[in-house]
Order: sequence, then structure tokens, then C-alpha cells
Amino acid sequence: MTIADAAPAISFVDIEAARVRIAGKVRRTPVLANADLDAAARARLFFKCENLQEIGAFKARGATNAVFALTDAEAALGVATHSSGNHGAAVARAAALRGVAAHVVMPRNVSAPKAAQVERLGALITLCEPTLAAREAMVAKIIAETGARLVHPYDDPLVMAGQGTAALELLEDAPDLDLVLAPVGGGGLIGGAATAVKALRPTARVIGVEPAGADDAARSFRAGRRLAGDAPATIADGLRAELSQRTFATIRAHVDDVVTVSEAGIVEAMRAIWETLKVIVEPSAAVPLAAIREGALEVAGLKVGIILTGGNVDLDHLPW
Amino acid sequence: MTIADAAPAISFVDIEAARVRIAGKVRRTPVLANADLDAAARARLFFKCENLQEIGAFKARGATNAVFALTDAEAALGVATHSSGNHGAAVARAAALRGVAAHVVMPRNVSAPKAAQVERLGALITLCEPTLAAREAMVAKIIAETGARLVHPYDDPLVMAGQGTAALELLEDAPDLDLVLAPVGGGGLIGGAATAVKALRPTARVIGVEPAGADDAARSFRAGRRLAGDAPATIADGLRAELSQRTFATIRAHVDDVVTVSEAGIVEAMRAIWETLKVIVEPSAAVPLAAIREGALEVAGLKVGIILTGGNVDLDHLPW
Repeated sequence: MTIADAAPAISFVDIEAARVRIAGKVRRTPVLANADLDAAARARLFFKCENLQEIGAFKARGATNAVFALTDAEAALGVATHSSGNHGAAVARAAALRGVAAHVVMPRNVSAPKAAQVERLGALITLCEPTLAAREAMVAKIIAETGARLVHPYDDPLVMAGQGTAALELLEDAPDLDLVLAPVGGGGLIGGAATAVKALRPTARVIGVEPAGADDAARSFRAGRRLAGDAPATIADGLRAELSQRTFATIRAHVDDVVTVSEAGIVEAMRAIWETLKVIVEPSAAVPLAAIREGALEVAGLKVGIILTGGNVDLDHLPW
Repeated sequence: MTIADAAPAISFVDIEAARVRIAGKVRRTPVLANADLDAAARARLFFKCENLQEIGAFKARGATNAVFALTDAEAALGVATHSSGNHGAAVARAAALRGVAAHVVMPRNVSAPKAAQVERLGALITLCEPTLAAREAMVAKIIAETGARLVHPYDDPLVMAGQGTAALELLEDAPDLDLVLAPVGGGGLIGGAATAVKALRPTARVIGVEPAGADDAARSFRAGRRLAGDAPATIADGLRAELSQRTFATIRAHVDDVVTVSEAGIVEAMRAIWETLKVIVEPSAAVPLAAIREGALEVAGLKVGIILTGGNVDLDHLPW
């Protein structure tokens, strides 16, 4: 491991810079609370509603920061990414706002509504085989041909810093939090959020939450070294990605723990959020509340901030 | 018709007084927008999310204003109302905040979750036969026995003024609206909202929207006199009530038109809101957007404010 590998990938100034760069381009989302959820948790819970972003997910923050950090000459060549979900829409929207081309590689089995959303946002879609290798090869080919810049879903300091602005805003609206929770997929959100929290409120703990069926971050955190994912299987499709060396180093520096939850717990928490907060969240977004309701975390008496990451679900196939 | 019957029941100062009285006791709800909804409407739409109130509906505003307007001596005797829906929860919560008793009469066939919510909020529930006459008789009996004050769901100037604060906040967040839309049930919300809009922005139009299957307000508006409801039948269960003389007079004074929408249009608009804004709305709340999407209103090029009234739905019985 080199020194560069071990250092966190971003610092708080990167998050402040991101906030300035994306101001007016992404929504300042509301923070909601509910007395019934609080009573059940014996705590005060503050939900940062990134599902209410214009594309329905926090991914708008990182993608917008990365796209608007490009020089005009760089941006003119366009941007590229691969995604079967929210990040593709985020890059497409950010590129449209900047007025440059977006190339989004999607697997052939992508859902029709997700592809339609990315297309509506003006991106050029290329379909490929549904493997990570095929997706990466196709993006590399497009970049070689066009000179477009890669906007990775999480393994990019600008993306991580952008995601961190969600926690920055959460702490502005709920300044005296004891604990901040976020789900862990590739680690861009939890890395950015922890960087923001530890700078603004060092006494607050930051805990990541993963599905037990996609627990590479929890295992890596305990092992002290990055471990590969093991055929992730979870309804929380936004959390199947693996940490990168960059996000892992940032998590090691700033995150206090990573805990896991069951599939049934995710569905129960998802429904509880729909019924009480009256907002639509996808399974991935319900994972932190599941940790509280399953008892994976002790929160009695605490003020807890929770980032609700996204709300893109198929209303014809709800999990209850 | 006497002069008192013909005059609006409230003025703008009542709404300002309500705002001060309920500050910190009800949530200042966010205003959301979505590019896809705007493109479909060829307009800019601003959604005031009263479904994100703590009890999931704007009814918190009027009930809180009425309960906190009581003198200590009056309040000590408690408050009473009848409701099968959101108003009962609103009165229960307001009474709990003030620390006084709430008596809520509910029909025997009330849904279990709704009764449980009112009970959780600390109200004393009395069940009765599911007719308006039985409900009113039971409330009258409770009031005679206890001295509790009636908090009517809409036929009360304090309740109307409280509901009007939703439009006041909407105009603060979206000051240059051309048109404000709200659903019409008993007329408390549209009456209060129109009073606020015409005071703050006289150039803006205010239009009420009703299900075609519960169109007493539309017929009354055109006839120039209050007409009875005709066996209301609509999925929008919050809109089955009839106007009172008070709300009708206020509507005549300040509302520019009342239009109607189909049942299929309500369900389509409800789903569009869930899918784009990522918030849960009940059928009643989708009625104004249905009017736009069905072409019952011409909004091209306009800035339109829409009050999303509530989000209390049974997730096991969605209408699509």
C-alpha cells in the first residue's frame, strides 16, 4: 500500500468548493422528521431527502460537481460514464445543464424507464453486455474515440466531494446531531459525508450501513484492508458496487463503523418511511433506518441524521 | 340571503394571525418542481407539499389555529370533532400540543390505521353509525356533556384562516405565480387560499378543482347559489364533503372558477406525482394536476402553484 492509497481522497475544502460549484444546479433538499418514527427509535431522526432531487437521487450532486469542474476545452469533448441507475441520469442532466455531450453506457438488460429517463435528458446511450468488464471496455472505447472525460460513479474525488454536500446541508439544518448514517455502495456518499461531518462536528459519529447480502465495506472495514465483493445479492440495487481504494481510504479515515441489515429489515424500513414521511424511497435509501429498527445500532436518546439517498422505484413492483 | 351570508367569512388579517399562532407548531412544507411535469404541461408548476406535514395533510394548519385560538378556560374543557380522515388526526395532534382533551367521533367503518393514528395522538375516540346525522348527533352529545369546543373540518373561520397559511407560504417561496390551484371538498382550503392569494397577488387567478363525481362546488359556483351534493362518488375521499354557506360565500368572493376532472385523470395524475416528485399523495391531492393534464385548464406559459393536500393512502390498495 502506498502513502497515496492510505490518505483520504478529499478534504473539507473540496466539499465547500463543490457546494459553491453546484449551487443553483442541484436542489437544496428538505430535512423531514416524524414523531412516530422517533418514538419507535427512542431517538430524534432527521431525514435528508435526496430522493427529492430533480433526478430522484443524491447522485446529482457528485456528477454536477465533476461536470462543472471541467475546463471549457475539456467539457467541449463531452463526458462519459456507465450506469444502470441513478448516476447515468445524473451525468446526463449535468451535461445538459452545461450544454455538452454525455455518453452513457448501459447494460442491455437496463429497465426501459431508466433508459428512457437518460435519453430524455439528452444523453447518447450505448448498450453493452451486462457485465462490469463489458461496461468498462465500452466506456474506454468511447473515451478513446471522442476524448470525453470519464465521470465515475464514485471513484473520483470530485464526485465524492459533491456527494458530501448532502451532509453539509444536513448539518446546517440540524446542527447538533450525535450521529450521521448513510448507506454504503461504492463508498462515494459515505466518504464525502464523513469528510464533511468530521470537519464541521467532530464529536458526531458517522456510521455506514450495508445490506448483509452486499457487505464488502463492512468486511473491509473490520479487516483493515479492502476485500472484494462476494456475489452481492440484495434488493438494494444501488448498493451492489464495491469500494474503490480511494473510497476505502476515506472511510478508514473518517467513518466510525459499518454495520449490516437484513433484506426483510430493508423492506420494513422502506414501507415505514413511505407511510410516515410520505416520501418515496428506493430500498437502498431505507437501509440506515433498517439498522435502527433492527437494533444493529444503539441510538436511544440521540439526534441522528439519515441521508435518504434516492426514490427511483417501479411502482408496479413494490416489495410488499 | 342575508348580508352576513354573502360576505366572505375571513379576511387576510385572519390568515396573518393564523400564521403567527401556528408558527413552530406545524411544519413549513417545501415547494417542489419537476422538469418532466413542466414539459408535459408546457408551464412551470410549483407544488406546495402539505402531504409532508407531520400528520400527512394540510388539515394540521386549520385545526392548530382553532385549538390555539381558544382561551385557557375554553381549552380546559377540551375540543371535539367528527372525522373519518385527516381532520381527526389534526385535531388530536393540536389538542395534544396544547395539552387538552380531544374527542373525535369516527364512523364504525373507519379504517383501522386511521383510528390507530388518532388514538396514538391521544384523542378519545367515540364510534358511531356511518352517517353524517349520526356523527353530528354524537358530537353534539359530547359537547353537551363536556363543554368541549367544536372544531369543524371547514365551516369555521379559524379553520379556514389556518388552511390559508399554506397559500401564504407558497407565494413566499414562488412569488410570481399566475395561477393557484387547490382541490375543493368542504371549501375550507380553497376559501382560505384564495383569500391569501387575492390579498398578496391580486393579479393571480385562483381556481378550484373537483372530481366530476363530487361536483357540488362547481355546480354551485355556476348557479350562483349553494346546491346540495348529489351522492358523491369518487376515489378522492377527501373531497366528498359539501360547501357550507361560509365557505361558499368566500369562494364566490375570491375564486375565479371551479373545474372538474375524471376519476381516470385523478389516478393518472396521482401516479405521475409519485413517479416524478417522489412524494406520496392521496387521490384528493392529485385532482389539480389532473385538471392540467386532462386539459380542463389552459396553463401554457404560466407559473402555476398547486397545493398537494395530503398523502394518507393504504399502500396495500393502490389504484393502479
